[in-house]
Amino acid sequence: MSILIVGSIALDTVETPFDKVENALGGSATYFSLAASYFTGPINLVGVVGEDFSKENIKLLEDHHVDLEGLQIVEGGKTFRWGGKYHYDLNNRDTLFTELNVFKDFDPIIPDKYRKSSHVVLGNIQPELQLKVLEQLDNPKFIVCDTMNFWIEGAKTELLKVLKHVHVLIINDSEARLLTHEPNLIKAASMIREMGPEYLIIKKGEHGALLFGEHMVFSAPAYPLENIYDPTGAGDSFAGGFAGYMHKTSDFSFENIKRAVIYGSAMASFCVEKFSTKGLEDLSTLQIHSRFLEFRELSKFEDDE
Amino acid sequence: MSILIVGSIALDTVETPFDKVENALGGSATYFSLAASYFTGPINLVGVVGEDFSKENIKLLEDHHVDLEGLQIVEGGKTFRWGGKYHYDLNNRDTLFTELNVFKDFDPIIPDKYRKSSHVVLGNIQPELQLKVLEQLDNPKFIVCDTMNFWIEGAKTELLKVLKHVHVLIINDSEARLLTHEPNLIKAASMIREMGPEYLIIKKGEHGALLFGEHMVFSAPAYPLENIYDPTGAGDSFAGGFAGYMHKTSDFSFENIKRAVIYGSAMASFCVEKFSTKGLEDLSTLQIHSRFLEFRELSKFEDDE
Repeated sequence: MSILIVGSIALDTVETPFDKVENALGGSATYFSLAASYFTGPINLVGVVGEDFSKENIKLLEDHHVDLEGLQIVEGGKTFRWGGKYHYDLNNRDTLFTELNVFKDFDPIIPDKYRKSSHVVLGNIQPELQLKVLEQLDNPKFIVCDTMNFWIEGAKTELLKVLKHVHVLIINDSEARLLTHEPNLIKAASMIREMGPEYLIIKKGEHGALLFGEHMVFSAPAYPLENIYDPTGAGDSFAGGFAGYMHKTSDFSFENIKRAVIYGSAMASFCVEKFSTKGLEDLSTLQIHSRFLEFRELSKFEDDE
Repeated sequence: MSILIVGSIALDTVETPFDKVENALGGSATYFSLAASYFTGPINLVGVVGEDFSKENIKLLEDHHVDLEGLQIVEGGKTFRWGGKYHYDLNNRDTLFTELNVFKDFDPIIPDKYRKSSHVVLGNIQPELQLKVLEQLDNPKFIVCDTMNFWIEGAKTELLKVLKHVHVLIINDSEARLLTHEPNLIKAASMIREMGPEYLIIKKGEHGALLFGEHMVFSAPAYPLENIYDPTGAGDSFAGGFAGYMHKTSDFSFENIKRAVIYGSAMASFCVEKFSTKGLEDLSTLQIHSRFLEFRELSKFEDDE
């Protein structure tokens, strides 16, 4: 009944108008794990790093109850590195470099003790590898999946195979439009749900998120942040918080999935308030619940009758 | 204690991927009035048309309790005409032509019996004319104002004078950024509220709307429409519904202003479901309240503790 997370682990070099960090801990699986760790644990992590991955980073993950049996450390290898620069409006970024290093040959081998994981987060990796992960698992009951334009355009056949198994797909609005060639998001959502996922979450950055189920839609607001220091990892923190809360509660009603969307949004809002993973390293349950209540205040209104 | 609406009245030629209409009733004051008419009346309308403005259009306004003493009909003149074409994604439009005609020399003369209007909607006209309207009024207690990039860039000094008198400014996100040169909408909102308006509403189209007050933010969802036939007039219908509900209730609490934002959003959603003003011509109170409740369902979630 544990939660399995598969994705990238990276060392990020990030520049924003406010600051710059070099070789800071990053990668989708890292953000997933840290965000999920506030709701549940242990987190079964499957990923790959090089020998240069620091003891401090290992310790940070361990401190957040991340089980590292599935972490492959390649002797003599270098960890995946990504460099990006955000502009003044923070909505756009340029990728400065991508050094795949050990991530290039990532083979997600699932340790025996992880095979019975009931909840799975499939990070944004080749759809073929996502399928390979699923094949190694013993009938998981809740599969959350991320993907990106690169796979939608370049590996659509494999992606469509993955989607048949997925319970919740989490993508952004441009990816939803790309996947369906449909500009209307409501129509696009129906089309995507017909591809397999029972639920679809469309992330819209500063405009919040939409959750779609059978004849049901939920609109989650974005937290009104005056100071966004580093948008890196926001989407992954969302998915981690979402999946962590779903694992904690194991309640698959639409009402509860809505709450999971809000907890995901809360984790994303903490993430972007600091550089790299700093915003997710030291939170309290009280802080997270307070932010959840702030989201409620933000979108609540009463009937007048 | 009546409501005054000043703005354009036009004959629109609109093409969307679904249909085309020629010389259909349009203009900001028209949409404002029709949307507001479901909440309050009579609506004191100040605008200008030519001799070519049809009896059917006059009758439609009268049927919606629009008082036409302030409607100037210029002998031998032609009504303002606008032509636009929407593309497949409906978020972008090209203006095909703008014939100002009698609107070019519009002088908003307020009839004596309108001077005591307590609620005012200043449509998107030259800021100088908006000031001229205000000068003719006897201390209105609630002024709602619209503007656009053209005036923000070309008549900023006059616009800033108008804003000092305004209680609620309603603009879209790109206008808010243009007015402040600040990409972060939360910061931009604070800056705009310092220019005068006690409340600011930022319309975000398919992403809903944000309402800002002193230390308060409200995020209104967008109605998930699968079929948008004609986006023309959505923003004006929003403002009309908002102002009409505020006039009806005369409750200036933040809680009530939130409801007004939702009623505005509801009127915008009805507007875009049909061509031209058709979506606003024949609604029932029950229909409008049902949609209000649908907005609630869309954004509501419960605490888990």
